[in-house]
Order: sequence, then C-alpha cells, then structure tokens
Amino acid sequence: MSRLAYVNGRYVRHADAAVHIEDRGYQFGDGVYEVCEIRDRAIIDLDLHLDRLDRSLSELRIVMPMSRAALTAVLREVARENRVRDGLVYIQVTRGVARRDHYFPVPAPRPALVVTARSLDRRKGEAAANEGIAVITRPDERWARVDIKTTGLLPNVLAKQAAREAGAREAWLVDRDGYVTEGGSTNAWIVTADGALVTRPAERGILRGITRTVLLKAAEAAGLRVEERPFTVAEAKAAREAFVTAASTIVMPVVRIDDAPVGAGRPGPFALSLRGGFHEHAQHTPI
Amino acid sequence: MSRLAYVNGRYVRHADAAVHIEDRGYQFGDGVYEVCEIRDRAIIDLDLHLDRLDRSLSELRIVMPMSRAALTAVLREVARENRVRDGLVYIQVTRGVARRDHYFPVPAPRPALVVTARSLDRRKGEAAANEGIAVITRPDERWARVDIKTTGLLPNVLAKQAAREAGAREAWLVDRDGYVTEGGSTNAWIVTADGALVTRPAERGILRGITRTVLLKAAEAAGLRVEERPFTVAEAKAAREAFVTAASTIVMPVVRIDDAPVGAGRPGPFALSLRGGFHEHAQHTPI
Repeated sequence: MSRLAYVNGRYVRHADAAVHIEDRGYQFGDGVYEVCEIRDRAIIDLDLHLDRLDRSLSELRIVMPMSRAALTAVLREVARENRVRDGLVYIQVTRGVARRDHYFPVPAPRPALVVTARSLDRRKGEAAANEGIAVITRPDERWARVDIKTTGLLPNVLAKQAAREAGAREAWLVDRDGYVTEGGSTNAWIVTADGALVTRPAERGILRGITRTVLLKAAEAAGLRVEERPFTVAEAKAAREAFVTAASTIVMPVVRIDDAPVGAGRPGPFALSLRGGFHEHAQHTPI
Repeated sequence: MSRLAYVNGRYVRHADAAVHIEDRGYQFGDGVYEVCEIRDRAIIDLDLHLDRLDRSLSELRIVMPMSRAALTAVLREVARENRVRDGLVYIQVTRGVARRDHYFPVPAPRPALVVTARSLDRRKGEAAANEGIAVITRPDERWARVDIKTTGLLPNVLAKQAAREAGAREAWLVDRDGYVTEGGSTNAWIVTADGALVTRPAERGILRGITRTVLLKAAEAAGLRVEERPFTVAEAKAAREAFVTAASTIVMPVVRIDDAPVGAGRPGPFALSLRGGFHEHAQHTPI
C-alpha cells in the first residue's frame, strides 16, 4: 500500500494527494510520465529513464521543475517512505495549472510534478514468468507520436482491457501493414527458428523502451543475434518464442498469441535466460 | 473569474478544487468532457450536449454518477454561483480513482465528476467574428476514435499551439488523402462558388459537433443547400467562404488558410448570417 506521495513540492499522505482540476494533465492529457522498477531497494536504470523523461518533456516544450539530483532525491525518499524493497516508482510531469485553453499558457505555469511508489510481490512476477502470458492482437489506433511517453493512454487502456476480457494479459498492436508495433504497455519480441531475437526498430511507431534498450545490450553481450526489424502477426505465431519487455515485468514470456500457442506453448529458454540475466546489465541506484 | 466549482459531490472554492493524483483522468486520460455555451443566462443546446456525453461515456463503459436532472441542477448552480451571463460551462467525467493499472479497475470506482463555469466577453467574440480568423493546415495525427470526446487532447493542443505561433487561431487537420477532417477544437466548413455549404460527414474521423448539428438544421430552415462530404485544402482555399463552428465560438468566419486569403479575405455573408441566426434554432435552458 502507498503511504506517501510527492506532489508539487510537498510530501503528502497518499490518500490526500491531489492536483488542481485545471492541471493540464487532467484537462488535456498535457503531460508525460516514467515508471522505474525498484529491485532489492535500488532503482533500476534510473539515468536512462530520466534521459527519456527529458526527451518527452523537450518534445512538448515543458521545462522540468527541478534538477536531476533533486528529482533523484525525491524518488529515493518516496520509495523509502513507502518501504519499497521490490516494486515501482512513478513520475508524472504536466504543463501545470492554467485556465482551460488549448494553447500553451502564457506565461508558462510551473509544471506539476507527482511521484508515487509502491511494492510489488516479486514472487508473483516470477510465477507469471514461469507460466507465460497470452496476448491478443488489435489494430494500432493510437496517435502518430507514441514515441513521446504521454499520459494520453486511453487507447492502451482499451486495448489491454480487451486483452483481459479475452483471457490475455497484453494486447499487441498491429499497424496497417500487418506488422506488430508494440504492446499496450510493453515492447514486443520474437525468437526466430534459427535463434535470432527480433524486435521493431525504435523509430516513431513505438516507444523506445528502457528495458528494451538494456536487453539489446544484454543480448549482444550473450552473443545472441538481434534483428531490429518489424515482424508480422503470422511470423510471431510461427516463432520459436515470443516475449514482452517493460520496467514493470522485465522479460515476460508469451505462450499464446490470439488462439495460437507459441512454440511448445511454454516459456522458452531464450526468454527465461534473458530474464534471469537482465539485472546484471542494468544500472542500480540504491534508494 | 471562476469562484466556485463542483467536484465529486461538493461545491468548493475554485482555487481549492482538486482531484486525487490517481484519478484515471490524470494518469491515463481515461475520461470525457463537454463544453456548453451560456448566453443570456441560458445553457445552449444542453440536451444535445448531454446526449453526446452519454454516448462518450457509453463507448468507454463509464457509468454517469448522477441522473440528468441532478446534473442539470449542478450545471445551473455552478453557472449561477459564478455569475455567468455569457460564457461556458465545462463538464468532465472520468473513470474515477484507482491504483494505477491500465485495465478497468475491479470493482469499478465511482466515476469522478467536475463542473466549472466562467464568463466570456461576448463583445470580444463579436469583434473576432467581424474580423475573421486565420487557420493553418496540419497533418491529422490523432488516434482513430476522435468520435469520442475524450480529454486526450494533446494532439489538438500541439496543433492549436502551432497555429498560434503561425499567427492563426485554429489548425485544420488534414487526413492522409488530403481532406480536412476538422479543426483542433472546431468543425470546419466551406461555402462553394455556387453557394452550397460543405462540411465533412460525422462518421469516425471527426467529432459530431453540437453546433455543427444545430447549424445544419438552421441552414436547412434557411433553404441553403448543404453537402455533407469531405473537402480538400485546395478546395477550401478556392472557396467563396470558410468558417468554423464550436460551442465556444458559434460560427466564426475564416478569412485566411495558410497563406491564402479566402474569398475577398473578409468575413462573408453566409457565415455572418448563419452566426446571426444561430440561436433562434438552439435550445435555451435558463440557469
């Protein structure tokens, strides 16, 4: 349970943590966010997440309201105060509070900053990884700038809800040409018959996942062949293995795509081995 | 200035009006809204706005947290308490507060409801209409379900900000085939050389504007010819007149599209006459 949150300069009880109704995050989705894993009381790949946060903010011309050192101190404090050993820390930055009008407010208000943290049961994650998850496929109906990590997540919400109602955990989004872009909250990967890892290039069309980036390095270090190219749903269904990556799930094996089992219908050795070795390649910032 | 807002069952000072940081409207853009004109102390076309609100909520499977009669009472109260004679009333409904997770929360939380109202200077609107506005054209980068009036407005924000920076008031969004879909916060219309009103059909691809709907009736009543069909940017630039419609602006003449003057570069008789007669065809609910 979350006990304490950071909201615009103050540490407050989570239950009382509030933002103004005219925060542009609430009225326009005019904000961005990051989620970092906490593992063994360390924030994982913090610098990469903060680099991406900077890029998202810069694309929207929102100025980060504090230095990286100060933000890091806040993240560590919120994680500690919530007694998180394993879990997540969440950062949201919006353009701030202004009378409702689409244009950027003039003068620019102080951007809003919210940080929360919560524990996750690592054993549950391990149990899910040992079982593997099912995914469904859905048309990718999102806007053109999904390379920016904005809070405008309703298309992702609807896709993941459809997955849940179909007995699956994730929805893989498919572009007009039949290629998988990414999952509702994960990047998508397959392993080909001859043992190559395949994942879509991180141009516009997907978000440049941090776990994805680190896993590419881990795969290289392990001498695995990696092909950054789009793949179709049909290719994924015929793949040797499939998996998804995200800060909240690290490497999660996919054992079913729509109604088709992937490989033997069980988590495969590539996914499990990459999952097992992931944190050796990650940065650990003690909280 | 706004003095008082309605937030989740309470009337509060506008300055203190807040929602929880885990309101799904804030974290996911998981909510919808309506804006109604207030004119001479009456809410304009309230029933049509509330019908559309019901449809938006239904598409997202959010249950409206109060009856229409109760909501109408809240809208009137907020408008009165803010002493609005001419202005806007704003309604936002989100899926409510829940621990952050993409899937719809189970059990469903109570949806959040926020109502604000503020005055607008009617003379300023009239002055703008007598001058006419400029629009720019931009690729339509929004998601596929813009028929739902969600708060995920960042693409609209970016388009309108680009317009402002180009010295214009509105951005017309253009689909892959070169046809205008709609404006960042308005519907788009042109008048052809032979005096027909042209506006895009309200299928997916645009929001079914209430002002647009009422104006179609007004045009019919005036014996004008209306063609509901897509039009290109080139056709618009060569049109006799152009204008935009929205609850906040009613009919606003467009006198420049990118660098091209429309017609004589002045507001034309069709737009001004439709603007002048609009409210005869609208529903008026006294506050």
